[in-house]
Parts: sequence; structure tokens; C-alpha cells
Amino acid sequence: MKIVIIGGVAGGASAAARARRLNEKAEIIVFERGLHPSFANCGLPYYVGGKIEARAKLLVAPIEMLRERHRLDVRIRSNVTSIDRENQSVTVQNLDSGESYSESYDKLVIATGASPFRPPIPGIDGSRLLALRDLHDADRLHDLATSSATRAVVVGAGFVGIEIAENLQRRGLHVTVVELCDQILPPWDQEMILPVDAHLRKQGVDVRLEESATSFSEDESGLTVQLHSGKSIEADFAVVCIGVRPESALASEAGIECGPRGGIITNEHMQTNDSNIYAVGDVAQVRCFISNNPTQIPLAGPANRQGRIAADHMSGRSSTYRGTQGSAIVGIFDMTAAMTGLSEKQLQRSGTSYEKIYIHPSDHAGYYPGAAGMTLKLIFAPESGMILGAQAVGTTGVDKRIDVIAMAIQAGMTVYDLEEAELCYAPQYGHAKDPVNMAGFVASDVLRGDQPIVHIADLQSRHNAGDQLIDVRTPPEFAAGHIPGSISIPLESLRGRLDELSTNRPITTYCKVGQRGYLAAKLLNQYGYHASNLSGGYKLWSNVSIRPDISS
Amino acid sequence: MKIVIIGGVAGGASAAARARRLNEKAEIIVFERGLHPSFANCGLPYYVGGKIEARAKLLVAPIEMLRERHRLDVRIRSNVTSIDRENQSVTVQNLDSGESYSESYDKLVIATGASPFRPPIPGIDGSRLLALRDLHDADRLHDLATSSATRAVVVGAGFVGIEIAENLQRRGLHVTVVELCDQILPPWDQEMILPVDAHLRKQGVDVRLEESATSFSEDESGLTVQLHSGKSIEADFAVVCIGVRPESALASEAGIECGPRGGIITNEHMQTNDSNIYAVGDVAQVRCFISNNPTQIPLAGPANRQGRIAADHMSGRSSTYRGTQGSAIVGIFDMTAAMTGLSEKQLQRSGTSYEKIYIHPSDHAGYYPGAAGMTLKLIFAPESGMILGAQAVGTTGVDKRIDVIAMAIQAGMTVYDLEEAELCYAPQYGHAKDPVNMAGFVASDVLRGDQPIVHIADLQSRHNAGDQLIDVRTPPEFAAGHIPGSISIPLESLRGRLDELSTNRPITTYCKVGQRGYLAAKLLNQYGYHASNLSGGYKLWSNVSIRPDISS
Repeated sequence: MKIVIIGGVAGGASAAARARRLNEKAEIIVFERGLHPSFANCGLPYYVGGKIEARAKLLVAPIEMLRERHRLDVRIRSNVTSIDRENQSVTVQNLDSGESYSESYDKLVIATGASPFRPPIPGIDGSRLLALRDLHDADRLHDLATSSATRAVVVGAGFVGIEIAENLQRRGLHVTVVELCDQILPPWDQEMILPVDAHLRKQGVDVRLEESATSFSEDESGLTVQLHSGKSIEADFAVVCIGVRPESALASEAGIECGPRGGIITNEHMQTNDSNIYAVGDVAQVRCFISNNPTQIPLAGPANRQGRIAADHMSGRSSTYRGTQGSAIVGIFDMTAAMTGLSEKQLQRSGTSYEKIYIHPSDHAGYYPGAAGMTLKLIFAPESGMILGAQAVGTTGVDKRIDVIAMAIQAGMTVYDLEEAELCYAPQYGHAKDPVNMAGFVASDVLRGDQPIVHIADLQSRHNAGDQLIDVRTPPEFAAGHIPGSISIPLESLRGRLDELSTNRPITTYCKVGQRGYLAAKLLNQYGYHASNLSGGYKLWSNVSIRPDISS
Repeated sequence: MKIVIIGGVAGGASAAARARRLNEKAEIIVFERGLHPSFANCGLPYYVGGKIEARAKLLVAPIEMLRERHRLDVRIRSNVTSIDRENQSVTVQNLDSGESYSESYDKLVIATGASPFRPPIPGIDGSRLLALRDLHDADRLHDLATSSATRAVVVGAGFVGIEIAENLQRRGLHVTVVELCDQILPPWDQEMILPVDAHLRKQGVDVRLEESATSFSEDESGLTVQLHSGKSIEADFAVVCIGVRPESALASEAGIECGPRGGIITNEHMQTNDSNIYAVGDVAQVRCFISNNPTQIPLAGPANRQGRIAADHMSGRSSTYRGTQGSAIVGIFDMTAAMTGLSEKQLQRSGTSYEKIYIHPSDHAGYYPGAAGMTLKLIFAPESGMILGAQAVGTTGVDKRIDVIAMAIQAGMTVYDLEEAELCYAPQYGHAKDPVNMAGFVASDVLRGDQPIVHIADLQSRHNAGDQLIDVRTPPEFAAGHIPGSISIPLESLRGRLDELSTNRPITTYCKVGQRGYLAAKLLNQYGYHASNLSGGYKLWSNVSIRPDISS
């Protein structure tokens, strides 16, 4: 068996190592265009920012190890220029000598990844415009970040854009982020990511939303980024991070089928329409585990898993890829945003019905020092209670809760199962009723009809229809800020002030996070009122209503 | 509806609050023997140690809040002395006035908890002997810890014993821990907890295993603890933490059925054999979610959940308790030990067949600063791969992995599902192949026959039978310490030295953590050898073989 793998980073490297483990006698050739197979792609921004000091640390599996330990024929600086499916061979150009040669294969793995999208904007090819894909890019950025440069523009506020912005700012540069969407980190729902946006601004990063670059012009002294709004930014350099495109030209030229967004179409074994050719990682189109729709998620975890599965399958095993779930996480200075499953906007786009709840728990017991707040959003099917997605934003403990819910989604669990989750508890680690349990309690209460809720988006129309909006927090909390049109009746005095309320008009209760509002609504409904609780409470309302980009 | 609840801490308080939410009009009386319902039980050791500075923080739901917010009739210093099931009433003694009265109930919840076991040892009732159950105990210990006392003995190295030992040591006292078992923290398997034991000793705590107190004698200057070994310890005071016993005398005197270990027998709705009487929390006997055997697990999470379920059921809902899974966690200075499901020794005791694997991953990508190692043990059914239990010990990230696996156990998942888990990945949070995935890979490899493994316990018998033991680490690693009888053939040179090995005798390979040993065995088996990998590697072997209590 002769296995040829095009691309030696996450998916390709995993496929190669696994294939060797399963078959000591196979001939395994890995073609890598760059100098380094298997480098730490996700570490690049942190090398630029100095968090990772030694460049050598980024070479997670040095070429010698791949050769000696796994007996892989790793050929660097080798660019595969064409695939001849009929003769089962590839043409390879040695980038050093310029010579081309042909190499046959029994099984071929395409792991060419995805390349940063470079939009056709005037000046996009200028020398002061960078991307971040490989070690070479990281070296250039590292040099600039530690040079005399003082101002940088980051175009695009996705994962890489935000990580680069943080790391350049950490190097002491003044950073401006330009993002076309009305929010940073578009995979998350907007209301969840607003506190991250505010945090980024607080650290000194200049965030420009609903804005785009229309041209770049440079001279010896620097770069001018012209913006769609008419404004412009002067900088020493710019990093363009407006997403990636699967590098599938090689495949499509060989008649391998690709999807509408350019990803190579794969089946559950990671096979393409040519059963001897597999595609893994960022170049592959896979299925969403939850919706079963085609998707492309350029993340390292799925890439590694797909590589393993392709190697399994070509070795005669029936391993299948269950689909991608969209689990993702990003650090923003000391904040963390994590998500798994589908977002609300994805569900809206696909017309899928859903319900959602918000809670604002602390990561561990409030009486133990260092407890830090987080906001957790749970999205679920209104009939079955099946968990569709979750997002959380905070400092510590965010990754844990989203990982636990990711496991629940993989298991096809419902919000009722989250009620029963038995997680480890001691006061420095969590709560006797963990945030995961609390999310389950609230969502289950909603589905059982125990806790009618109102969403912020519906407040205005309810207000117009004569809704009574009751703030059940304490008078000092109310005085410090409240939702316009609300009246103050603290929870503790609610039972004695029922006659101030009408049973004929709906009531919306709210408190800071949702707990007292829930108790108030529950109480009122038992006295014949028609009360619902504002999900997410004043905390979420103020995040959404007092937008940092408006107020700043 | 008149609901009476005996005991106002975790389970009782949860039942009371939930009952109120479901039924605004119910009369709800909570009898609490102490001064404070709903105090932070799990925080007591940290108040003693000063980690929690303000005592008021321990009063998580002050009595005024319970009265005003939940309209609960909370009666403190009220001891229920008998239950009259026929007339559905309880007799209550007011501990201040000494007077007794009767209170009727429609539904009764027994949440009397468990009391520290005090063995019949001479001197056990001395004034220098303390326990830690409630705020009063915590106050006494707090006063002693901040007095001129310099030496303390902790009898029992369970959760509370270890937490108290840590906190007294933090106050600057010299602490000796006396434990009857051959390990601290008996719920964990011994080999997993040895590093914690070593860590405790490193912090200056004097740990005495397989030792017990046979008598206590005290005078004005201090306390002498006489030990079974003949040794004795001088101290200022001792804390006795040798486990708890369900406080079920009240129930059993009323004819409510209890199990062999004293817990009140409950059904899935937390009902006792009297359908109007429920038992929740530490006083209740429940079922193990995995084995379905009766069990008693005195932990806060299950207590809270059981309280909620009892309240649901008496309010006409069909909520059921799925059983206890045994998820537990303990902090030991900066270390963490966590577990979920069944331990190996529980499985051995019940004669259940199982397989196990060990891995030693880091909590996040090694190239990102601050990565810390952990040891993770996964226990699973040898036929189905069903996950039976997991234990992990390390510093950071231990709680996350055990919580994720706890969710997998709840879902009835297998080790094959852990392979597929899609968890959040960025280098500061985890790995593209998370420790949970790695555990799944290794366990699945074992079950598929891809990775024959050997356990440390079997090394000697294999050696006696002529096994070839191969250390595949580098020569410097081998030189720094290796398993007696092993020969050194580094992985990288294994392919060239195959002729040094015999195909007739089994081979055991090992490395530091198990990864290179796995590759070596996989390679050898493809060349016709009969090789297995030592699970847990040299790291686990040295933990087990170089016992801190022996070496120190």
C-alpha cells in the first residue's frame, strides 16, 4: 500500500501518523509546501504576541521525529501541482530545485487546508499587508510587532483577527479592528459577544463595526487604510483576516466534487467522489452533526479527527465521522467566549424553531474567593427539549460548562438531562447546583410551562400592548438604572402589593439576572396574574441596550 | 397542603424553596436544630483555614430571606423528637425554652443529614476532640486554629479530614493525619491518589497510613493520641473525621425502613415506605446510577437534587431521581483529585469485570505557557466499552475532564463516544485531541485489539514467565531510573534492533507515559512479535513503586 498525503499540518499529519500505526509496511509520503510539517497553527498569534517565547515550541512534531519515529517520507518545499486520477499519481514540484516529478498512490489524502481570503481591493498586494497562515507569516508579524511599528490595523474580527489584535496590543501597538458585520466574532450571537467587544475596547483596542476597507495605499512612512465610511486609518501595517477559503483548486481541477463554498465534498469516511481519494481538515466539506446540513468549520479538533478516520478507512476499518458540532473557544485577554452546536442566528437562517434561555451564574460558589460571573445561553428545541446549542462568555469556568454541554449534544440529550447532570462539586470548583444544572432547570421550567419567559426583543411590542413591566430588585438597584417604563416592586414586598397590579394586562417581571424575576412571576401566576419573566434580566438588557460602540 | 421539613441545610432547604415555588399557598414549616438553616456546609474547612475570611459569607440563605422571599416558616433551635405516622404529626422540642409541642403534616421531608461517627475509643468525649459538622463546630475550630495552638491531629483522611488538614496547615499548625486505610481519600483508587499523598507530605503534613487512634488522654497542656502501632502523638487538639452516619434514628423509631448502613430507604421519588414521608440528602439511601446497587453518598449536589425531586413529587409531579453517580472532587493545596462513577476497587468488590487505561496528558497544549500534567484513569466494560468510571489527579483542568466524562456516563456512552467528543479547543484551554479524546482513543484501541496492554500488577508474574521488558525511552531517561529487569531500546532505534528480541516470548514495552510504548508495541506486533504496552508507563509505575510513605 502506498499512501500519499498532500499537506502535513493538523489533518494531514494525523492521517500520516495513524496510517503508520495501522500499517508498519505501508509506504507513506507526505508532501508539505512549507518548511515545517505539523507546526502549532493555533499557537501562531501567541508567538507574535510573545506569550509563547520560543519559536521552536511551535514545531510540535519536528520533521526528524516524523521520519524516525513514524518512518514517514516527509518531503518539504514540495508543491503538488496536479492529480491524475486515472493513473493514480500526483505531479510534485520541488520548490527549491524547481523540478517536477510524478509520484503514484494507492490512496491519496488531500489536506491542503484553507488559505486566507484576499478580497480584490486596491492595494491588497502591498508589502505592508499581511495574513497569518503559517510560520513564515508568523515570523514576519513577529518581526513587525517587535520592530519600531506602533500602529496596526486588523481587518476582520473572527477568531484569528481577534487573537492577532490582542497579541499586537500586548506588544504595545495601537490596534484598530475593522469588521464588516455588526459584531465581532460572528459565530457567536451578538448579545453574547457584546461584553467581549466592550472588554476589547477597554483594553485599548479600537473596534470599528459595520465598516470595511476599500483600499490600501502605502509609502515609505506607512500605510493608509481607506474605509467604506469615508474615514481612513494610518498604520504601519495591516493584517487581513477576513476568513479562509478551502484550497481545493487542485482537487476540483482533477474532477473531485466541491460544494458551493469550495470545500471538497466528503462522505462519512472522509472519501471524496473518488473512493481512493480522501479529503480532511479545512479543505473538506463535512456535515453538521445537529442539522445534518453541509458545513465547513476550519478548526483543529475536527481536522485531527478526520485525518484519523481517513487513515482508518483506507486501512480497512469502518470508522465514520459523525459530523462537526461547531465547538469553539477564543480567549480575549482574560475573557473567554465558548460555544457548541448551532447559534440562534444559524437557526433563524434555516427557519428552525427553537427556544432559548439565559443565566448569569458564577463559575464557583460565591462564598469562596475568586468567584467570577459568566453568561450562559442555552438553545433548545421547543417540543423535545433537545439541546441545539450553547454559548458562554466570562472569565474562568466557561470552557468547562460548554464542554459538558457539547458532550450532552453529542449524546442527543435534552434540557431535562441537564437538570440531572451530576458534576463534581466543591466550592472552589463549582456549585451544588452547577451552571449546567441551572440552565437545565430554567429551560425545563420554560418547557413545562412553569416559567413563562419574555425575550428582550419582544419587550417593546409587549409594552405597546399595555404590558406591566415590574422591576423586582431592591430600590437601590432600581435607582442605579432600570428598563424605561418599569415600576419598582421589590420581590420581598410583592405579596403585600398585589393590589397595585392588574390581572387583565400581562405582566413582565425582571431582576438583575433572572432568579428573583422568576420567583416573582411564579408567585404572581399563583394569584391569578399573567406574569412572565424577562430571560437574562437587567444584566442582559443593559448589555444589549447600552451598546459599547454607541456609548463610546 | 401542609409540608413539614426536618432539617434546613442542603436537601431540606432545596425542598422547601422548590415546594414554595410550586405552591404559593402551601404551609411550609422547616425545623432546624441549629441556629442557621442553609449554611455553606462545604465552605466550613475554608473558613477554618482563613481562605474564606468573613463568617457571614457562610450564611448563603439568611433566615430573613427564607422567610420573606419564600414565605417559609423557619423555626430554628427546634429539635424534632418523634414522628407519629398514624396521626401525621411530629413532636418538636424548642431547644431554648425546653418546651415540646406537636405539629401536623400532610407531607413530611426528613433531611436530618448525617452526623460524624464517634467511635467508642477511650477519651473520645474529651474537650480537645472536635468534629466538623456545623457552624458551631467551625467556630470552635476557627478559634483554635487562630489561637496559640501549634499541633493538631486529624483522625481520618476522607474528604473532610483532608480539607481540614490542609486548612489547619495553612494556619501554620503542624498537622498529623491518621488514617486506618492504606491510602488517603479512600473513594479514589490507591495508585491515583499516591501523588496527592506525596504532595500533602511535601506541604509538611505528617500522614500516617494503616494507623488508628486507640485512646485520647488530655490534660491542661494538651492531648496525647495513642496509636495502634504503639506510637503516640502530642497535640493541642484533634479533629475526628472518620466518616458520617445517617441520622435516621428518628425515622427508624417511627417504623420507617432503613438500609444496612442506616440510610432511610427511598424510591425514585425519594419516598420512604410511608408514601407521605420523603427522605433526602445524607440521611437517605439511594441507588447507584451505574450499578443500581443501594448506596449512600453524602454530597451536596445529590442532596439538592433530591430535595427538589421530593418537592416536585409531593406537588403532584412525576420527577424521578436517576440515582447517584459518585461525582466528587477535592482540592489539596494546589492539586485537584476528581472522580465520577465507580472505582476499580468498587468493581473488584462487586465482582464486576472491567478494563482500565491510564494516560498522563497536560491540561492544555504543551507549547502554550503554563501547561500542567494530570493523570487520568478510565474504567470501562470490556465487552460493550460502556464507561464505568473515571478518576483524574493534577492541578488545572482536572475538574473539566471528569465533568465531561460524568456527562458521558449519564448518557450511557462508551469509550468509542469519547473518541468522537468535539470539545472546545484553543491552545490555552486544551488540545486538538483533548485528554477526553485521548482516553477514548487508548481505551478503544485496547478493546479493538489494537493496543494490547499490561497492568503494573501483572508485571511480576509476566517477568517470572520470561517476559521481555523493553524501555523504549531515550538513554538519558533510562539512566535516570527504570523498571528493574528492563532493557533499553529507544523507540527511534527499535526498527534496527529487532534481532535483539525473541518472537517466542511475550514483550512488554514501556515509556514515560504510554505513547512511545504504544507505538513500539504496535510496530513490534506488525513484525511478528507478541508485544503489549505498560498502561500508565514509567510515571505510574514509579508512583506506585516508590511509595512516599515508604521512602520518607
